[in-house]
This record gives sequence, structure tokens and C-alpha cells, in this order.
Amino acid sequence: MKFATYHDGSRDGQFWVVSRDLTIAIPATGIAPTLQAALDDWDMVSPDLEALYARLNAGEEPFATRFQPERCLAPLPRAPQWLDASAFLNHGRLMEEAFKTPQNPDFETIPLVYQGASDDFRGPLADVEFPDDALWIDMEGEFGVVLSEVPMRTGAEQAEAHIRLLVQINDWSLRAVGPREMRAGFGFLQAKPSTAFAPVAITPDELGPYWHNGRVGIALHVEINGREVGRANGREMHFSFGELIAHCADTRKLSAGTILGSGTVSNADRAAGSSCISEIRVIELLDEGAARTPFLTWGDRVRMEARLPDGSAPFGIIDQSVVKA
Amino acid sequence: MKFATYHDGSRDGQFWVVSRDLTIAIPATGIAPTLQAALDDWDMVSPDLEALYARLNAGEEPFATRFQPERCLAPLPRAPQWLDASAFLNHGRLMEEAFKTPQNPDFETIPLVYQGASDDFRGPLADVEFPDDALWIDMEGEFGVVLSEVPMRTGAEQAEAHIRLLVQINDWSLRAVGPREMRAGFGFLQAKPSTAFAPVAITPDELGPYWHNGRVGIALHVEINGREVGRANGREMHFSFGELIAHCADTRKLSAGTILGSGTVSNADRAAGSSCISEIRVIELLDEGAARTPFLTWGDRVRMEARLPDGSAPFGIIDQSVVKA
Repeated sequence: MKFATYHDGSRDGQFWVVSRDLTIAIPATGIAPTLQAALDDWDMVSPDLEALYARLNAGEEPFATRFQPERCLAPLPRAPQWLDASAFLNHGRLMEEAFKTPQNPDFETIPLVYQGASDDFRGPLADVEFPDDALWIDMEGEFGVVLSEVPMRTGAEQAEAHIRLLVQINDWSLRAVGPREMRAGFGFLQAKPSTAFAPVAITPDELGPYWHNGRVGIALHVEINGREVGRANGREMHFSFGELIAHCADTRKLSAGTILGSGTVSNADRAAGSSCISEIRVIELLDEGAARTPFLTWGDRVRMEARLPDGSAPFGIIDQSVVKA
Repeated sequence: MKFATYHDGSRDGQFWVVSRDLTIAIPATGIAPTLQAALDDWDMVSPDLEALYARLNAGEEPFATRFQPERCLAPLPRAPQWLDASAFLNHGRLMEEAFKTPQNPDFETIPLVYQGASDDFRGPLADVEFPDDALWIDMEGEFGVVLSEVPMRTGAEQAEAHIRLLVQINDWSLRAVGPREMRAGFGFLQAKPSTAFAPVAITPDELGPYWHNGRVGIALHVEINGREVGRANGREMHFSFGELIAHCADTRKLSAGTILGSGTVSNADRAAGSSCISEIRVIELLDEGAARTPFLTWGDRVRMEARLPDGSAPFGIIDQSVVKA
């Protein structure tokens, strides 16, 4: 299934089901008022959602309308929880280099996950506002999962059964702030403004064999001002989403609607490019002696599109401009 | 005004208004379905809530019933955001000593605030479950504020106008995990299980002159197994809530329903005791050469009650037992 949330002036938006090919859509508010409400009562409402989705794809819903990404908020405009990992070790190693942070001895065995802000997620085409471009505005292309309730101490193998939806994310970051916040030990706050999401959240079966081993095994194409800078594949994630969930649920339960991100998608093969500018810059520094790609400024445009091998974009497209608040 | 949320089987609970003296209560669901919904539309619904509160206190609500804290969830059982500061520098200094973390050069000028989990807040009398008492189970007695939407870059002086409600908090912590998570730089995750709240959230005017200068100027009485260990006053907060809000809104807006905590209430005068065990232990270590107060274990009971000078408890009482998950 594929779900979107349309702007309707309310805080949680209007819940829609979108066809597999993202051409048409129909309100699902008769089944659940919001996507969060559907996640809260998933076992009860998902059969009705499945039936509606089947009729929509079969062309049997006379009131279906053209799918309009420009009306989309994030699938969950606000959520009870946003957890973001750094599960691509290639990225993590390069960022240690970039930030000159001390080596983490648990790097390969204990996932790095920070608790992020879930109160104000941004839609796929919404301008993103920042107070100052001297803060080193950066993007982070990621995949993520949306969970049902996960009991405390759920193991990694059981955890995957709690994945309800997959999402595609741009975790906007302010790199000039991050190192100070990391050194202080309390994690990211000012360094992580509102996060943006591709228009549709999808059930894992929508990826067929490309949802494998708890990883999203497709390439995330990232463009800055029309120039492709990355096409890294999600299959190189060191920890699976199941392992990340188990880590987060180790000392408490996770409530339905929790979103968990992979961290910046990154591949060892440098031909895959990068999903964030910091990584591009540190590679330039290592390979060429100096970083030359600038961080983002007013008017810059970032486009992210995960693609299946047939060229289709299962999550739709994130395409945002950086603007001054 | 004073608000509570009763358990009704739903995720966000049932919204009630409680009398000033906490003796009687009445559902407010005819005005707003949940406290979060009231916060989303505060300007629209607060006049009706004010009128209901006035009638309730005047004994003019025939359907009022006895207030039952045992039915209470947290005032917001889940919220869009939970931010927790460490704004009592006396506590911060002692914790640097306890955790042997490096000295923070910005300690007195840049507030320390971590992004916490807001998906699963606990009611005032609910048992708190932990997986293992070898993780050094600790409490943290705090005050907090619940916000309306705060625009990006709101200054400290303007920020106070966005404080809708005050709350009293026990920020449960696992001290054996904290130092590793601080060193890794991504902040607290496993170290901060679900947070608990006193039964009622109150508007700042309910404290009269004891809400002053953006601080809650009353003592927080903390007991472990019936023995008082702390009575620290909230007025010694180094940063005001206005300053903390401005810090958090520096690079993004904060949505309505955001909860911001003070961090462990702590006074320079050692006669005031402590609001967490780690602080008690480090004081024992410094003053007596060895920590002797143990962390919590199964069956231990923690009671927290902020008191006005007349002895009344404006937020009601947190009284919880530690149990094995």
C-alpha cells in the first residue's frame, strides 16, 4: 500500500491512499482520520485499507483523483517519535574524519542513534527555512521505517515484524553546530532542524525483492541544483532496521508511529557519490587535498529520488529549495 | 486552570478539567477531545475552558465527580516533542564530577538540552518497568513547561508568552548507560526510558508569585521509600524557561504541545538535598569519601511532590514503584 497526507489546514492533515504508480489517489478518511490513527489501530483498519488500495489500483474507484504531490505534507506531519541512526559505517567513518571527533570504540557493534525532533516534519516540495546560511546547511538522504508498537527488549529478528511502512527522508542538518553539540554529550538539537519526507509512505511489500534483510536495496539519487551527486544503494547498511529497532527498544517500548531513520545512505564505492555535502567535502579533502563543494545557500535546490531498477520512484520525489527564514 | 487526562483505552486519553484544590473534576471533551487538541487550538478553546474551570471551582457543575489521580495518565500521554535541559548548574557541575565527563567550556552561557522520547509518557501512579536493575536506575525530579507554537528565533523575552502550562516531571534515567551515550556524541537514548508526570498540568497563574522570572519558585519534595532526600527549590535555575525556549527555537520552530524540562532541580545549599540519586552519591563521595546510597531496585518507591508554602501540592503527586519488565 501507499499512503500520503494532504494539507487541509489541520496539524495532522488528511489521510489518502495513493495508487502503486502514483498517478491517482483517494481519501482514506472514512477508514481512519489520519495516518497516525491508522497506525494506532493498524490490525483493525488495515484490511479496509488493503481493499481500498486494491480497488484504486484496479481503476474501480470512481471518485479517485489525480495524485498531487504538491498538496502533500510529510506522510506523518508530526509523529510521537523520530529516531535517526548512523547505520552506514562508510558514512560514519568519513564523518569522524570530517568532524575530527574521537574514534568510537563501539562503532561496529553498538548502533549510533540519536533522538530527533518529531514535532514538525516537512512535505516533499515545501521550501525549507533556515535562519542563517553561515551554519553550513547540509542535506542527508536516508531511508526510514515507521513502526507499530514495539515491546521493550524485542530482539532484532522479531523487530522486523513491527515495520509497517518505509519512508524516504531528507534529514536537514546544520554542520557548523553539530560538533559543539556532539562534544557537549547531549546530542543534536540546534544542529537538526525539521526533517523532510518524500510524498508517500509505502508498505515493505511494495519493494518486492528490494526490501531484503531488513534493508532498502535500491539507489537513492541525490541532486543539487540539477547535478547528480549521489546514487548510493541502501543495501550497504551495516546494521539492519531490525537490529536498529532492537537497540532502541532495549530499555523501553516504542509507540506506534515511531519513525526510525537509517542515517545517510553511503557506499564504499566512491562511484556511488554521496547523499550529503559533508561527505562530499571530506572525500574531496582526502582525495584532492581540499574541500571545494560548498554547503548550501539561499535558492539552492535539493532533489532526492529513490529508484527501482525499472526507473520508477516508489516513494515519489523530494524537491526542496533552501530559503531564508 | 488545571488539566488531567484520564485513561479510557485510547492512546491520548480523555481530557478533564480539575478544580484548583484537586478535589473534583469534570470532562472537558465537549470543548476539546484531548489536551493536545486544546493546545493545537488554544486561542479558540481556552475561553470555554476558563469558563468551565470557573464553574467547577464555584461548585456550579452538577456533574463534577471526585478527582481520581489513580485514573490519570500523564497530562499528555504522548506529545510531539520532549526537550529536557540541564538548567540547574549546581546539578550539572556535580554530574560532570560523577560521570568524569570533560568540562564543558560553554557551561554557563549555552544551555545543555537533549531531545528526549515523547512517545510514551507515564502516569503519576503507574509502576515503571525496567529491564535490569544493574543499569543503575535513577530518578530526576524536574519542572517543565508545555508550549504553544514558537516561531524560529523567538527571543528569550518573547518566549515566555508561549508557555501554556507547567508540569512536574520524573525523568527516569539509567546511569550505567548514560556515560557511553554521552561519549558517543549522539545524546541519550537507552539511558532515558519513559518519563513520568504528576497528574495535573497547570497554567502559570496557578502559582501566583511563585511563577517568577521564568522559573517555578517552589520546593520539590522527593522521597525514596518514605524517606525525604530532597526539597530543592526551582528558583535557582540558571537559565530561565524563556532562555531555554529561545535556545531550542534558534534554528527551527517548536510545535504546540512541545514539553521542555528544567533538568534535575538542584540547589547550592546542601541542606536542600537532591532530586536524583546520582547527585546524592557524588555528594557522598566528595564529602565522605564514598558513595553509599544505592541506585534503585525492584519494589523501591519514589514520591515527588512540589509544595506551595501553604503545604498544598499544585501539581498533585508522583508516586511510583520500580518493577521488573
